[in-house]
Amino acid sequence: VKVYALLLAGGAGTRFWPASRVHRPKQLLALTGEQSMLLATAERVLPIAGGWSNVLVAGGRHLEAATREALPELPRENLLLEPVPRNTAPCIAWAAARIARTDPDALVMALPSDHHVRDDEAFRETVRAALASAATGVVTTIGVKPTRPETGFGYIEVAGAPPDGVATPVRRFVEKPNRAHAAAFVESGRYLWNAGMFFFRAKDLVAAVRAHLPALGAMLDRLDEAARLGDEGAALDAAFAAAPNVSLDVGVMEKLDRIAVVPGDFGWSDVGSWQAAWDLAPRDDNGNAAPASAILIDARDNLVIDLRSTPTDRTSALIGVRGMVLVLTDDAVLLLPRERAQEVRTVVEALRKAGRNLLT
Amino acid sequence: VKVYALLLAGGAGTRFWPASRVHRPKQLLALTGEQSMLLATAERVLPIAGGWSNVLVAGGRHLEAATREALPELPRENLLLEPVPRNTAPCIAWAAARIARTDPDALVMALPSDHHVRDDEAFRETVRAALASAATGVVTTIGVKPTRPETGFGYIEVAGAPPDGVATPVRRFVEKPNRAHAAAFVESGRYLWNAGMFFFRAKDLVAAVRAHLPALGAMLDRLDEAARLGDEGAALDAAFAAAPNVSLDVGVMEKLDRIAVVPGDFGWSDVGSWQAAWDLAPRDDNGNAAPASAILIDARDNLVIDLRSTPTDRTSALIGVRGMVLVLTDDAVLLLPRERAQEVRTVVEALRKAGRNLLT
Repeated sequence: VKVYALLLAGGAGTRFWPASRVHRPKQLLALTGEQSMLLATAERVLPIAGGWSNVLVAGGRHLEAATREALPELPRENLLLEPVPRNTAPCIAWAAARIARTDPDALVMALPSDHHVRDDEAFRETVRAALASAATGVVTTIGVKPTRPETGFGYIEVAGAPPDGVATPVRRFVEKPNRAHAAAFVESGRYLWNAGMFFFRAKDLVAAVRAHLPALGAMLDRLDEAARLGDEGAALDAAFAAAPNVSLDVGVMEKLDRIAVVPGDFGWSDVGSWQAAWDLAPRDDNGNAAPASAILIDARDNLVIDLRSTPTDRTSALIGVRGMVLVLTDDAVLLLPRERAQEVRTVVEALRKAGRNLLT
Repeated sequence: VKVYALLLAGGAGTRFWPASRVHRPKQLLALTGEQSMLLATAERVLPIAGGWSNVLVAGGRHLEAATREALPELPRENLLLEPVPRNTAPCIAWAAARIARTDPDALVMALPSDHHVRDDEAFRETVRAALASAATGVVTTIGVKPTRPETGFGYIEVAGAPPDGVATPVRRFVEKPNRAHAAAFVESGRYLWNAGMFFFRAKDLVAAVRAHLPALGAMLDRLDEAARLGDEGAALDAAFAAAPNVSLDVGVMEKLDRIAVVPGDFGWSDVGSWQAAWDLAPRDDNGNAAPASAILIDARDNLVIDLRSTPTDRTSALIGVRGMVLVLTDDAVLLLPRERAQEVRTVVEALRKAGRNLLT
């Protein structure tokens, strides 16, 4: 049976401003290594998908050029361009429907493209277990074993203590909890982090969409019909414009009677801030993550990101600086202490209010 | 009697890297206001010189374009380009000799062009007193009343307590003292800072050079002869190459029998570091000196200098940052705490050793 990887590569991404922009969201950045996170995600699952022809990438139309540049080996027709952003349910359903037209039993793994995984092989083991579960006709997800009472993620509750590396039934999905609930979840040992990864047979997801999200089912009907007539592309704009703006979790997953989860432990991070980027980036003996061109004198634990396009020899010189994030682009510079990384939003908000063109 | 302003505008300037470069020394920067310090110096003395035709500027050949751009009203022939750097004695002597050829009684004020003066009118009062003294045939300087036991300046000792605003005889020039001597100097009330400003009749300086620095006198002979033949320019290279590399202080001033000083108190600074630049720059209520394009959130007492040539709308966003210096150019960024401003030299040294082209 064929296995497709569907990489979700939309997103606006303001948490990594000024590196991330409307036209360069987080997955296109090389925050934690030499590669963009999108390319790293694709290469991580290539051994399972069996080659680039089975890799699909879904993203907004405005990201076409940058996405093709980031994935030079991706076949042209494998880039699914959403005319308008409509969250994850419409684009995953569209991809599943396309695959189902010719290969309804094919397995699909829908994965975020802007997460970091430390142990690729452990990740693939977990993915293989999730695909094995999906092959039985049960939509399956991966739940990351929580390491802290994080309030920024959704949780997945399982019936008992989760088994190691095999699928177990999901009891319920839980939205981002408050601190007390999060602590109780971690304490109980029955909750996993929802990392937004979904595994299914193409036909099963299409059926689930038709059953639980009829408005989206109608979109799939339109697109199937257009495809039969040989012009799916022309129908896309109207179809997406009419599609419900909803995540697959909320629109479909939470409504399914049976859904399985495979617990995973592979050094996962959603890379949610500059702080996380520093945590994950290769660092020198003084804790600095900085380009080789930098001059660091009595500098410790800093993150320097240099995306300037100007002269090939350039430098950033830091003297006596500790724990700072310094991000350089042609038109913007960000400087803040690592522990205040969340406040980047404040800057983005100020720029938006001022109508300044430093976000695109 | 005519009064000429001779602005000394050479210098390499590594203390303001990456803003200052070989081709953009300190006087061409607008460190403490909207204008370059060179233009500010020229405008400060224009009321005394009586117009741009009496302003001469001496600088290295490599600075020609940048200097003309900084001083658009300077007549072409008033820019004296030194073929090779030879400290201050040769270029001041050359300028004096040029003036003396047609107007030996003209008064000349030779001034550094990279200092800051807070009270322009008080400065001009002091200059007028120094010119009045020079008009009597005594080479005269200005001594700044010391406000701290600075070890970075030379001192001028006078015979008794210096009088207010009139010339008094210089007892001796003192090189940069150690801390204890500097403290004793300030305590005594008889020492003034040597700010490198000299006032003289053109013919008096030429005579002093011939008397005390015969090697330089020989250069003046060559140039006078060439000028008589109508081609001073062609003689310059050889003349400067053979000239002694010496300051006017050491080569001439310290050897004169009679020399006068006018004590001055006009808010003087030699703007010796990024710390001094922050001290002198206009700052907002939070102590930040930053361009209007900057976004400052919970940021205090920072200096931000943005010399990037890239997009017209650009920003520097600082969150939770205190007392830092952030300097941005197209090819280099400097970040350090203000109190470590002196260590810029370390970076310049590292770049020089590495043979990297980020200094020119």
